[in-house]
Amino acid sequence: MNDFMDKDFLLDTETAKKLFHEYCENMPVCDYHCHLSPKEIYENKPPRDISELWLKGDHYKWRAMRSCGISEEYCTGDKSGKEKFEKFAYTIQYAIGNPLYHWAHIELKKYFGIETPLSAQTADAVYERANQAIQNGDFRPQSLIMKSNVKVICTTDDPTDDLQYHKLLKDVKGFDCLVLPSFRPDKALNIHLNGFAEYINQLGKATGTEIKCHKDVISALLKRADYFNENGCRISDQSFDYVPFSIASDDEIEAVFRRAMREESISQQEAEGYRTKLLLALGEKYHQLGWAMEIHIGAMRNNNTAMFNAMGADIGFDSVGDENIAYSLSRFLDALHSQGSLPKTVLFNLNSKDNIVLATMLGNFQSDEAESKIQFGPAWWFLDHFDGMTEQMKALGNLGILGKFIGMETDSRSFTSYGRHDYFRRILCRLIGRWVEDGWYANDENLLKEIVCGISYNNAMKYFNFK
Amino acid sequence: MNDFMDKDFLLDTETAKKLFHEYCENMPVCDYHCHLSPKEIYENKPPRDISELWLKGDHYKWRAMRSCGISEEYCTGDKSGKEKFEKFAYTIQYAIGNPLYHWAHIELKKYFGIETPLSAQTADAVYERANQAIQNGDFRPQSLIMKSNVKVICTTDDPTDDLQYHKLLKDVKGFDCLVLPSFRPDKALNIHLNGFAEYINQLGKATGTEIKCHKDVISALLKRADYFNENGCRISDQSFDYVPFSIASDDEIEAVFRRAMREESISQQEAEGYRTKLLLALGEKYHQLGWAMEIHIGAMRNNNTAMFNAMGADIGFDSVGDENIAYSLSRFLDALHSQGSLPKTVLFNLNSKDNIVLATMLGNFQSDEAESKIQFGPAWWFLDHFDGMTEQMKALGNLGILGKFIGMETDSRSFTSYGRHDYFRRILCRLIGRWVEDGWYANDENLLKEIVCGISYNNAMKYFNFK
Amino acid sequence: MNDFMDKDFLLDTETAKKLFHEYCENMPVCDYHCHLSPKEIYENKPPRDISELWLKGDHYKWRAMRSCGISEEYCTGDKSGKEKFEKFAYTIQYAIGNPLYHWAHIELKKYFGIETPLSAQTADAVYERANQAIQNGDFRPQSLIMKSNVKVICTTDDPTDDLQYHKLLKDVKGFDCLVLPSFRPDKALNIHLNGFAEYINQLGKATGTEIKCHKDVISALLKRADYFNENGCRISDQSFDYVPFSIASDDEIEAVFRRAMREESISQQEAEGYRTKLLLALGEKYHQLGWAMEIHIGAMRNNNTAMFNAMGADIGFDSVGDENIAYSLSRFLDALHSQGSLPKTVLFNLNSKDNIVLATMLGNFQSDEAESKIQFGPAWWFLDHFDGMTEQMKALGNLGILGKFIGMETDSRSFTSYGRHDYFRRILCRLIGRWVEDGWYANDENLLKEIVCGISYNNAMKYFNFK
Repeated sequence: MNDFMDKDFLLDTETAKKLFHEYCENMPVCDYHCHLSPKEIYENKPPRDISELWLKGDHYKWRAMRSCGISEEYCTGDKSGKEKFEKFAYTIQYAIGNPLYHWAHIELKKYFGIETPLSAQTADAVYERANQAIQNGDFRPQSLIMKSNVKVICTTDDPTDDLQYHKLLKDVKGFDCLVLPSFRPDKALNIHLNGFAEYINQLGKATGTEIKCHKDVISALLKRADYFNENGCRISDQSFDYVPFSIASDDEIEAVFRRAMREESISQQEAEGYRTKLLLALGEKYHQLGWAMEIHIGAMRNNNTAMFNAMGADIGFDSVGDENIAYSLSRFLDALHSQGSLPKTVLFNLNSKDNIVLATMLGNFQSDEAESKIQFGPAWWFLDHFDGMTEQMKALGNLGILGKFIGMETDSRSFTSYGRHDYFRRILCRLIGRWVEDGWYANDENLLKEIVCGISYNNAMKYFNFK
Repeated sequence: MNDFMDKDFLLDTETAKKLFHEYCENMPVCDYHCHLSPKEIYENKPPRDISELWLKGDHYKWRAMRSCGISEEYCTGDKSGKEKFEKFAYTIQYAIGNPLYHWAHIELKKYFGIETPLSAQTADAVYERANQAIQNGDFRPQSLIMKSNVKVICTTDDPTDDLQYHKLLKDVKGFDCLVLPSFRPDKALNIHLNGFAEYINQLGKATGTEIKCHKDVISALLKRADYFNENGCRISDQSFDYVPFSIASDDEIEAVFRRAMREESISQQEAEGYRTKLLLALGEKYHQLGWAMEIHIGAMRNNNTAMFNAMGADIGFDSVGDENIAYSLSRFLDALHSQGSLPKTVLFNLNSKDNIVLATMLGNFQSDEAESKIQFGPAWWFLDHFDGMTEQMKALGNLGILGKFIGMETDSRSFTSYGRHDYFRRILCRLIGRWVEDGWYANDENLLKEIVCGISYNNAMKYFNFK
Repeated sequence: MNDFMDKDFLLDTETAKKLFHEYCENMPVCDYHCHLSPKEIYENKPPRDISELWLKGDHYKWRAMRSCGISEEYCTGDKSGKEKFEKFAYTIQYAIGNPLYHWAHIELKKYFGIETPLSAQTADAVYERANQAIQNGDFRPQSLIMKSNVKVICTTDDPTDDLQYHKLLKDVKGFDCLVLPSFRPDKALNIHLNGFAEYINQLGKATGTEIKCHKDVISALLKRADYFNENGCRISDQSFDYVPFSIASDDEIEAVFRRAMREESISQQEAEGYRTKLLLALGEKYHQLGWAMEIHIGAMRNNNTAMFNAMGADIGFDSVGDENIAYSLSRFLDALHSQGSLPKTVLFNLNSKDNIVLATMLGNFQSDEAESKIQFGPAWWFLDHFDGMTEQMKALGNLGILGKFIGMETDSRSFTSYGRHDYFRRILCRLIGRWVEDGWYANDENLLKEIVCGISYNNAMKYFNFK
């Protein structure tokens, strides 16, 4: 029996141990997609206790607690830090098989030096020790980021954002991490959702123009892309429940746009022509700027109307959709490729059934513009666990070129979540170590080193043209 | 090499063996969903031979035999018990990898004391020995149920059922098992299928009312739910090929209802408004009664028209559908939740692609009304095998709280199928034992005992408020 | 650590080794579906170098190279054989986890006697040694086929083909392999694609008739089926991105046909009535002739318009679709079954999500016309790797009768791809060996031998009535 989550956690062959400990473990981190707040990084405030650090904004944990029958007052409500932590510890003991269980213990060890398994019984002791560590140590965001050896952080930002904190962060002394914006134009694309007209007015203000028609929306977004580019942006990100693709005439698009600006209701189907036109124009811009285009597919958001009305988005009431995506995604990428303006693209799926669709879609549009110009994004959100990561890498291995994979990002809102890179690298080395020991891949140490260090860090740095 | 299906079958670590043999193996059974006949349990007749016990009503076995090229006369036809058994034994030797192979050997050992591998060569000897066991022992339904340590059986019953045998069974001396009805209103919901009008007339008779409009259907069903509740029912069950959800006006619904009562053809799409309205009214009722609502999604039934016309339903010509379910299921549950009347819900999928959809859907509607109020039902029917059960538990582990899982039911029509609980518990202990031995979960014996006994029996008893 | 791809590659138990080396390894090959050219087999020309043999027509390899950022000139372009081989070797070293990596090394060993792992570093040495082997040995098609112990090859042929080379091959002395045509009427079915009208005119010429209406198309195809049958054909093949099924009137079908013959654009939906009628007529014919009907479902072809316009089809720009298939496939098979003319059928899926749909669809239409009359085709194209083959066999094992499986074909365009049968048989023996050693299936050597030799060769020979 292995010791509980010890230094060789997940590493079940000698080759896996060697690849991880000798090569991967100490590689820096390139977190090319996350939801960290540049303001919080800049303000650099220490947390009050481990409950603030862990439970203040983490919808993964709230969701798990609710699934254990815990009342909302312990999740997003007014209970004390200690009470909340006790309920979380109670929850975690039943969360057998859940990545939260592993993440929590990786973080306890990595940032707090605590190796006690967390449970209802150990909750109070762990709570005390963690808080002592916080009091006695430096748990401010910049310190946590540097301890985690993070060299690049790409946040997720609205085109209207002035990027004030990204600018300020450039000049912070002793903070050796590039914090770059990413361009996420979802609100301008979501013509069928509430708040669209108001958002378009904001976008007008941000560009100092009056937006009168859908072409003005495009112009404004392209301007903002230039602004983001000047401020170090190299990545755009769009999130779809499914992939919209429908070619409509300018008149049709404009008619829908006008209705939306009058706050009339627009169906998803009616929205497709507008969204497609914007996406094609944006894709062309990204290609010109040399950016990579990330596409996150398959989240079905805000399913619980009562909780959405009470508390808004991103609080743990999202789940996985199951729309068919192959045809429209193919048509979208081909439309960009046909006009010579398909940017580097990273495709992320949230439904594991789409692994094979994405892993084969890549191959339709590869070229010599980059090594694996079209990338299969790492397992993300509901797939961000041992099985999800293993299946994503096997799919890419079977159907593409795993050795050129850009690897992991955190997609996280938490400053201690860099343990997930450790988790990912162990899983990577386990997979490859097994193949080597079974005689499925040549035991060529130089090549293996290049591959695992590439996937851990180097491939992403090269792909996105960082440093 | 392990011995063939010995006492440690499927238990590949010391922890798995310990968890199973010390804790799970002798826990009672809560069979919260099956298709056993209360009449047969009450009448308690012994089987003539093992062919009657095994092959009289088991469409799994017929299907396997037909797949081996065996003629229908050996499945549902007039061949002798011995001839049928020989053909089944021939079939089973090619059924490598099939759960039928395991179930057959578990049952031979558990109920007949026979450990000989079944094949064409051993068929006659096994047939003789099994029949001797039947002659010399007690293979009547009540005896098989008690030998299997079953404490609760929830049958599946039409709302028009008078529950006569459930009532009679309460007073059978020495039969220490609760046999409760479940409320399955499928026929009242299936306005688009043949026989609807006739069924509605039966429903009227059962409630002593004349059903004139769709609202009368609802009233009648609610009355019957009260009647079922008085007779111990705690569970409703609905079966969908996909999840219907469409809000229609009462006038529209009534118009469709009238057409259906005139035996006009109704399309699935036209049926949705009616079905949705009934389901919302029923869900509210279940919530009031404190029942759990089971939803079985994904069976595509009666695919072979010639065999359906000759022999009817449930004879082995069903398969797995692949409709998209995420959006409409989300809307249905949200509609109930928004009106404050979402009951405890158990979601079952028949297509493994939906594991991730259901395992994440749960989290959208959890609350403190129960621990894991929304449950992910166990692998069922075409998923009721080692891979299906393992994947269902991994999905729940990765995405929910496995420790609060209500575990296995048989979904069976056979009195010897309780070996499937043994099978399930071995797979559970194998999975958890592996995690513990690999250091992925703390080796805390008290917690592990609570978790495996919970999933084997205790969680279901608590969730459904039995005893 | 195992040696790199040695004689026990993939065989991880003693039982697996025994089953493979004692029984499977030397069984002949029945390649019941491939894309080899009968003309090339007949002309029997030696290749110039390993680049011609490996890289001239293999879109799998081009795709991998493009994914590594290699320019088109090294794939389909004018670079020298040596330059192309170097780029391929560079690619292969990053293709960790990809079946191409295994296929390449199996072929190097089997046909060239080279056991050096291929990489950028070894590229030139391997290129030299391989070319020496070609110079000194016999690498002509007929020799490669005979060395590979292939007894039957079923090519894929258009109904208009005169089968000249199949006829010529019958009389080639010393070439002990049956080369039979398969009937692939896709072009006549694809009324919605460019080139339909021109093709129909060719079909008319091939049958010496003028095709004036859609019924004439059917008559012409049935005539050609008779011609193919006289020339040894026993299999038809159709390829669908999804399964079309829609019953339309003859007038509707004829109207669409006339538009198509005028080269007007036909949508997929409009095409369904025509396609369904043809498929039902063809299915009936196949049944009369005792043929097997292969259906390949799920390829989404020619996604890259620019490359399609430049170079045509089958050059590596296809991927996996994700349409829902269960309902229409059920209706299509039932329509044939209801009219008493469902032929033996082999269902192939390209999207792994459909494994469970197909593996359960089989059971809806089995009968005593053949053992496993409806077959689940082996993992194919994008699923033709360790995981895909294992999952297909597990799905069939769980849900059907694995012991009656007809096993592997190559689906290949290359004369050295027979190593894929070796690969498949190792995976088969690994899977079954594990089950036996774990005590999941009785250790009955006679039965195991029958099963693995059946799946390797005997079942297919019997199923298709070869020899």
